[in-house]
Amino acid sequence: MSGPEKMSGVLSPVITPFTADLGVDADRLVRQCRWLLERGCGLAVFGTNSEANSLSVEEKIDLLDVLTGAGLDAARMMPGTGACAIPDTVRLTSHAVKLGCSGVLMLPPFYYKGVSDEGLFRAYSEVIQRVGDARLRIYLYHFPQLSQVPITLTLIERLVKEYPDQVVGIKDSSGDWSNMEAMLTRFPGFAMFSGTEAVLLKNMQNGGAGCISATANINPAAIADLAANWQAPDAQAKQDEMNKLRTIFQALPLIPAMKVAVAHYAGDPEWERVRPPLVELSAEEKAGLLAELERLGFEMPGLAEPQTA
Amino acid sequence: MSGPEKMSGVLSPVITPFTADLGVDADRLVRQCRWLLERGCGLAVFGTNSEANSLSVEEKIDLLDVLTGAGLDAARMMPGTGACAIPDTVRLTSHAVKLGCSGVLMLPPFYYKGVSDEGLFRAYSEVIQRVGDARLRIYLYHFPQLSQVPITLTLIERLVKEYPDQVVGIKDSSGDWSNMEAMLTRFPGFAMFSGTEAVLLKNMQNGGAGCISATANINPAAIADLAANWQAPDAQAKQDEMNKLRTIFQALPLIPAMKVAVAHYAGDPEWERVRPPLVELSAEEKAGLLAELERLGFEMPGLAEPQTA
Repeated sequence: MSGPEKMSGVLSPVITPFTADLGVDADRLVRQCRWLLERGCGLAVFGTNSEANSLSVEEKIDLLDVLTGAGLDAARMMPGTGACAIPDTVRLTSHAVKLGCSGVLMLPPFYYKGVSDEGLFRAYSEVIQRVGDARLRIYLYHFPQLSQVPITLTLIERLVKEYPDQVVGIKDSSGDWSNMEAMLTRFPGFAMFSGTEAVLLKNMQNGGAGCISATANINPAAIADLAANWQAPDAQAKQDEMNKLRTIFQALPLIPAMKVAVAHYAGDPEWERVRPPLVELSAEEKAGLLAELERLGFEMPGLAEPQTA
Repeated sequence: MSGPEKMSGVLSPVITPFTADLGVDADRLVRQCRWLLERGCGLAVFGTNSEANSLSVEEKIDLLDVLTGAGLDAARMMPGTGACAIPDTVRLTSHAVKLGCSGVLMLPPFYYKGVSDEGLFRAYSEVIQRVGDARLRIYLYHFPQLSQVPITLTLIERLVKEYPDQVVGIKDSSGDWSNMEAMLTRFPGFAMFSGTEAVLLKNMQNGGAGCISATANINPAAIADLAANWQAPDAQAKQDEMNKLRTIFQALPLIPAMKVAVAHYAGDPEWERVRPPLVELSAEEKAGLLAELERLGFEMPGLAEPQTA
């Protein structure tokens, strides 16, 4: 079977910078992606935390071209490609595969609720058939709190049986360890990424693939280090340490909070912008966040240094 | 203020026919739209019941061109144009306005949940600014069960105050009469369409604009007749009669059930197809539905007759 190796380790659902007119700021995104790669993080661009569902398919295709055109390694990329409409999912997925991305992270169609496993199976099948490329590697995206369309164990079983070479893993953002544990047990070899680094050590100890976590935007080196060295004696101490940082961000609207942190440590207020329907942190939230980060002695080394895009 | 008059009466969220390879069947859609117009129904194409969120923006733009190109009256159209990403909403809305559609039905961005009224206000504002056309008439689309992003009274108040010429009405699919009543009271002159004909008479009696209802695909003439003659002495009897039909459909997955009915009465099984993640009715569901329709003596006159597309 030709095609990319299964992905593992830590990926960041890279936050997306916007220009003053709310366009995508491709140059800043390239710099951020490079900063993350240099710290051991893969690039799950177009994730929930990338505000990906606030971007059009055209914007995402253009960005993938810019990122790879800037020399960033497509083999380290797992762009989110799942949309409500099959033609959109097919178009973006095909483009990602052609550019050499090692995988795609695929939400189910998420407008219609209460849909059956049969309907979701058909949706994924249709995408796989239409993309029609042996290099396609799908990581399912289970995020019931936002998509409201869960990926059940029964659906995974059926997809893996029918498309063993294409459906190779999952990101579980449910936060429900019992669901992650059930997948690790029932589907050995299926690459299970937790949607948070809070259970990264546990996931690695149980045969998981790694994590794709929002706060990998903020704390990439430490999280990547734990994924690589989870068998080291100080692993639990590292896990406990990174949980402190995550707790701070989780108390706030996560996406604007991460953007405030990047803006602050990069010395670049442009980073604070979000696209509606999201809104920026209030002045109070922002001051509170930065005070807490300072109290923790937190830094983002290398972010403020001049970079060549 | 130049631009279209406020819309009223009954509109059908026209079901979308698909070809064997799941492409959009534009010819059948044109015929269906013509059949609906001839029975007094306006065309809320690209509604929830049109499987609109399973269509790409490009498919919807092409369909609008085909519908108007076939001579159907754009003044009777209120296409659904609200998408998750502002650029998509802007693109489709601009096209609809340019073609002369009297209004657009606009879902809020629906991927991110728990967003603030401020964020939704900014989203609608951004769309209005970017479309930048005095002819734009927005009917907000409140469907919390599916979108999971409600349009609150506070948001409506703010939008109507800021954009009195653009934000002119709403479709309320919540099924919650108390919410509809609150809008009728607080926003006189704001065109309130109920999302079901089950409260059509009550809505008209309280100053509402009409309804945009799934089952207007099946029962257009009777529903349009009640909207036009709601002050007649037999109005309640008509309301009671049409409720019987709606009850039959509501007991089933609504979209595939309506397609089964159209397929049956048109003598055209092609109509049964749905796009994933939806699935067709089971054989049992189908037989049960058709038996109930027969028991009711239901017919769809004119649907099976040869039509010129």
